Amino acid sequence: MFWIFVAPEQLAGGELSLDGARGRHLARVLRVKPGERGVAVSQGLAHHVTVTAVDGDRVSGRLDEVVPARGEPSHPITLLQALLPHADFDAVLEAGTQVGITGFIPVRAARCVGRGGAERLGRWRAVLESAAEQSHRGAIPAVAAPVDLEEALATVAGARILVLDPTAAQPLGHPAPAGAVAIAVGPEGGWTPAELDLMRQAGGVSFTLGPRILRARLAGVAAAAILSQ
Amino acid sequence: MFWIFVAPEQLAGGELSLDGARGRHLARVLRVKPGERGVAVSQGLAHHVTVTAVDGDRVSGRLDEVVPARGEPSHPITLLQALLPHADFDAVLEAGTQVGITGFIPVRAARCVGRGGAERLGRWRAVLESAAEQSHRGAIPAVAAPVDLEEALATVAGARILVLDPTAAQPLGHPAPAGAVAIAVGPEGGWTPAELDLMRQAGGVSFTLGPRILRARLAGVAAAAILSQ
Repeated sequence: MFWIFVAPEQLAGGELSLDGARGRHLARVLRVKPGERGVAVSQGLAHHVTVTAVDGDRVSGRLDEVVPARGEPSHPITLLQALLPHADFDAVLEAGTQVGITGFIPVRAARCVGRGGAERLGRWRAVLESAAEQSHRGAIPAVAAPVDLEEALATVAGARILVLDPTAAQPLGHPAPAGAVAIAVGPEGGWTPAELDLMRQAGGVSFTLGPRILRARLAGVAAAAILSQ
Repeated sequence: MFWIFVAPEQLAGGELSLDGARGRHLARVLRVKPGERGVAVSQGLAHHVTVTAVDGDRVSGRLDEVVPARGEPSHPITLLQALLPHADFDAVLEAGTQVGITGFIPVRAARCVGRGGAERLGRWRAVLESAAEQSHRGAIPAVAAPVDLEEALATVAGARILVLDPTAAQPLGHPAPAGAVAIAVGPEGGWTPAELDLMRQAGGVSFTLGPRILRARLAGVAAAAILSQ
């Protein structure tokens, strides 16, 4: 069974009709055949379809049923993630998508080693779409070009800001806070005191994941797994 | 600050005294210098030490303080993990150590693609020791040679067996069950009906991590992060 994200016009008239990159992906990578069933997600709705024809890069399907997609958390979870080496940042996007993170804001922090910039955006979006398909999300998580911490905090104004800090006393426990949440995870070397101050001024509260030290690439994923449970 | 695991005799007489592989690791990889402070863990105790001399592969240190190591969960968490491709299985060991798993039992499941065997044991132990040092655990998690599911279940007799199954209705919620827990995670293709039956007969209860499909290499880690919180 395939799970793909499509544009509303690709479901016009009660038919699935794909060509271009999406049709090619379905026909050549996923190798769907007539009779095969799958889900085409658009605007939060899961359209169950049966493939009726595959012609080159063009795939057509019949609409069987439409139900709300179930893969989204009840409240948005944004991850403010300090830039990491490329493989680690990609791993955060992939695993974070599986545990329900709805948006990623790459942050240029003082102690960042990885300095990837806006040129990674295309790659990041491809990682997110693929992970969202594999994990049966109801929407592809958003990702923005890297910004400074101040700008990142302005973007999540109104959300409860949870700063992961191994030295904090307060555990990230249940029940999860209601409403939008933003998790802030520093680079491997941690946030600087000035960055921690900035987050505190923006209403951020420090939390610990317990006595064990988690790598930067795992901390946000573990926190989101706990919050979205 | 370093964090290493040592044998009791390497702390005899109130002095840290390392040579051989551990001394070499500290002297050449971590490059400790006289005056540097760190923790040497033995039998669940964190011995805070100050390095007094480094001579080739021989490292000596003065014992400053002994406190119980805090990095262990309150109850044992064993992961019965179906064998995965090598890189994925190593990633499970590394991340699982960070979230508090105390023992790993590699399981030969019917749908396993990765078929690594006992020849991986040395590599697995090295991954676990390194991850336990980095995450400041109080003990290095155990790992055994791969076994059949039946033998794995016999090994965890007495533990509450939580079978992760995306089709289950019951969420893996709080509060965490008291006492020893074993989490069972299948290969990418899932457990077979016969394997699910076998686990049910052994007292296993199926749980879901929610509506999102997690990759095999993340599912056990996410479950342990929730349970050890």
